[in-house]
Amino acid sequence: MIDSATICAIATPSGTGAISTIRISGPKSISIVESLFHPIHKKKSLNSQKTATLHYGLLKDGDELIDEVLLGLFKNPNSYTGEDSIEISCHGSIFIQQRILQLLLKKGARHAQPGEFTQRAFLNGKLDLSQAEAVADLIASSSSASHKIAMNQIRGGFSNELNLLRDKLLNFISLIELELDFSEEDVEFANRDQLQDLFSKVKEKLDGLIKSFKLGNVIKNGVPVAIIGEPNVGKSTLLNALFNEEKAIVSEIAGTTRDAIEDVLNIEGVLFRFIDTAGLRETTDTIESLGIEKTVQKIQQADVVILMLEATNNWQQIAQQIKHTVDKYNIVEQKLFVLINKIDKTAMEGKTIENLKSDLPEITFVLASAKSNININVLKSMLKKAYDINNLDSSPIVSNIRHLEALTNASEALSRVELGLQTGITGDLLATDIRQVMHYIGEITGQISTDEILGNIFKNFCIGK
Amino acid sequence: MIDSATICAIATPSGTGAISTIRISGPKSISIVESLFHPIHKKKSLNSQKTATLHYGLLKDGDELIDEVLLGLFKNPNSYTGEDSIEISCHGSIFIQQRILQLLLKKGARHAQPGEFTQRAFLNGKLDLSQAEAVADLIASSSSASHKIAMNQIRGGFSNELNLLRDKLLNFISLIELELDFSEEDVEFANRDQLQDLFSKVKEKLDGLIKSFKLGNVIKNGVPVAIIGEPNVGKSTLLNALFNEEKAIVSEIAGTTRDAIEDVLNIEGVLFRFIDTAGLRETTDTIESLGIEKTVQKIQQADVVILMLEATNNWQQIAQQIKHTVDKYNIVEQKLFVLINKIDKTAMEGKTIENLKSDLPEITFVLASAKSNININVLKSMLKKAYDINNLDSSPIVSNIRHLEALTNASEALSRVELGLQTGITGDLLATDIRQVMHYIGEITGQISTDEILGNIFKNFCIGK
Repeated sequence: MIDSATICAIATPSGTGAISTIRISGPKSISIVESLFHPIHKKKSLNSQKTATLHYGLLKDGDELIDEVLLGLFKNPNSYTGEDSIEISCHGSIFIQQRILQLLLKKGARHAQPGEFTQRAFLNGKLDLSQAEAVADLIASSSSASHKIAMNQIRGGFSNELNLLRDKLLNFISLIELELDFSEEDVEFANRDQLQDLFSKVKEKLDGLIKSFKLGNVIKNGVPVAIIGEPNVGKSTLLNALFNEEKAIVSEIAGTTRDAIEDVLNIEGVLFRFIDTAGLRETTDTIESLGIEKTVQKIQQADVVILMLEATNNWQQIAQQIKHTVDKYNIVEQKLFVLINKIDKTAMEGKTIENLKSDLPEITFVLASAKSNININVLKSMLKKAYDINNLDSSPIVSNIRHLEALTNASEALSRVELGLQTGITGDLLATDIRQVMHYIGEITGQISTDEILGNIFKNFCIGK
Repeated sequence: MIDSATICAIATPSGTGAISTIRISGPKSISIVESLFHPIHKKKSLNSQKTATLHYGLLKDGDELIDEVLLGLFKNPNSYTGEDSIEISCHGSIFIQQRILQLLLKKGARHAQPGEFTQRAFLNGKLDLSQAEAVADLIASSSSASHKIAMNQIRGGFSNELNLLRDKLLNFISLIELELDFSEEDVEFANRDQLQDLFSKVKEKLDGLIKSFKLGNVIKNGVPVAIIGEPNVGKSTLLNALFNEEKAIVSEIAGTTRDAIEDVLNIEGVLFRFIDTAGLRETTDTIESLGIEKTVQKIQQADVVILMLEATNNWQQIAQQIKHTVDKYNIVEQKLFVLINKIDKTAMEGKTIENLKSDLPEITFVLASAKSNININVLKSMLKKAYDINNLDSSPIVSNIRHLEALTNASEALSRVELGLQTGITGDLLATDIRQVMHYIGEITGQISTDEILGNIFKNFCIGK
């Protein structure tokens, strides 16, 4: 599966800087660099040096001096890729980067495909597949929360646990297959109760991870939030109040495209993407009902809906409006926040927030004034709380749709196994079904992988990784 | 002059990539990184490790894992800056780069000023000033020739030679000052003939370097070439013929702004910048004579003028047109190439190219057809030959206007010394004059430097260098 070519690429971001790094990996790495490198202090050959050592010297093309470089030498298997590998740090001129790359190509290396270094790390057993995928997520991460999910996954995350469970399943299959060898003697090596226990454990784990995807996915891509309400209820004012304070924090991340962060808010490390909706208005007009359809769509895309109502309404009106909106726009899956605005102008008649909470316990209420910036921070901390990943270290979160599919397939296969166990299917069918569960779990960590799966995963990597 | 702060900056180009490097330098570098770093293999403290070693581990902010990093540890004085210094290689996510930078700042480092690492290298005697300046030139270099000039300068270039001459001058001053101590005894420790010899040597060196500036400057910034000629003589066709073949080579340097290379041609490693001129036409119109003034300006900015004439003219006409153009547009300082175009359509009457050459030996002739691409490569190799820096290693080239100024000042001061020597001025005045020569030479290598000079030099560096 792994080809024996020596690959090279610029690993640092493209452009001009103080330092750039060019990476080369594969069996000929050391001899290729050796033929270009003239060490200044040590006179020994690179080949005779230890792994993970630094070497300072001149890089030359024949007599022509290309640059003074610092080499990081990593020897098979003690490198990122598991192969002989060298990181060449040079002056960050585009000309020099290109010159060095061209020299390496001339000497027999080939240019790396996107993600090929990481793919080799996977194929050489340095990373499992979910860890390899997390490398790309880590590089793309733009908030504390998405960074944390990727970093957790890179450090082993749920794949360690899945592997453990998979090993246990494999163990049971061996026992079942042993039974088959002794089929005429009607022995039972695989304890069916223990098997049932294990299945429950695996299913609980799988379903927990499947459930975590919704959180993982929105955290990775930014939590979609729809602010809805009648015209002039203060939607824009609320957006301004939310953004004015936080824009500085978002823009601290230099280089993030302005366009992309226009309506993205980083609240204590979690990204929230605000979805624009037209003001809601009661109408019998058919054209306007098309507008409602569109708003329904946007609400369905959201993970959080903030319904803004006015404090000038009394409690009966508020309750009625909430019920009406929930029904009309089909707000079932979303977290619903009701923000009662303009509390600085008027006190809501009839009820306190405690009454609201006890009457509609499933809804989160905020009494606020967007204009006077009252309780906007309360809304923020409620949003943040709803996506708190502080306990992430103890409970891994799935954020990759490929993993979700494999987990769902594994869970469904497991249900079939459990059903089979209850209906007393034969050992050989049971073993086949369990193998299917193992297959899907193995797809996540890469014990089961095809060129197609790998191709799909690594094509989205950047070159040089 | 050097402050004791520990400084840090992202050293790799800005943006997202596989790897990024953050650099920290100064007395607290090791203790700051130590407080964040959790080594995976070695359990010894960074402080007890040798210089120029690599260390793999986790970078954490308290309990929060920021990244898996590779540290390059360099200990005072064996580092780029001459101070304790660490290069932190992390995953190339903008978020991670910023997080690590923020952590270093939180722990007491401050953000580096542009060029501050290199400035410290200079102040700590790791580089002289002309070498430090060459670092910025090297990073900005975008052609083989400009790269070579910068690289030669970084490797010591002319500053070694200048220092040697400066030392000899210093030696003579000591002898002259010794004479002053014995002034009543009328002895002469400093041999005046040897002194005159030394002066001649220094002057030759200085004037050689001053003369090299013209070449150095045009190579650094691209050789300005004006193509002039009557309308329809084929100027645009020539440009197309020149560019069509070479554009691919120019664009090989990825990331170079398209705008900037629109009319820049890289001929075998030397950049030529083509200056657009309006077609020349005989006129008595006063408005059009303003146009001529403008063309004169453009020709004066050029280092090469390519005058295009048509092969349909006979030799007398050609010679007349050349003389007329040279006079009218004041082409004195420029290298003049006369390209006789459209030789595929008609043979020039009366003379061969050999005749042309013998009649006007100071002018370079090319018989060509821009349209049929005849002899365009001859024009190119002639251009290249005029700016050949293959002998650069043996004769250093000055490309920095600050150096030119200092060299010119030194040369002028030296002329005054020589005059003084001839007119037999007293030893103390002679010593003062020689000191002035030394002062100007010292400005180049940085033995003489002021905060203002340093400020001007390093403000144009990128941050992280």
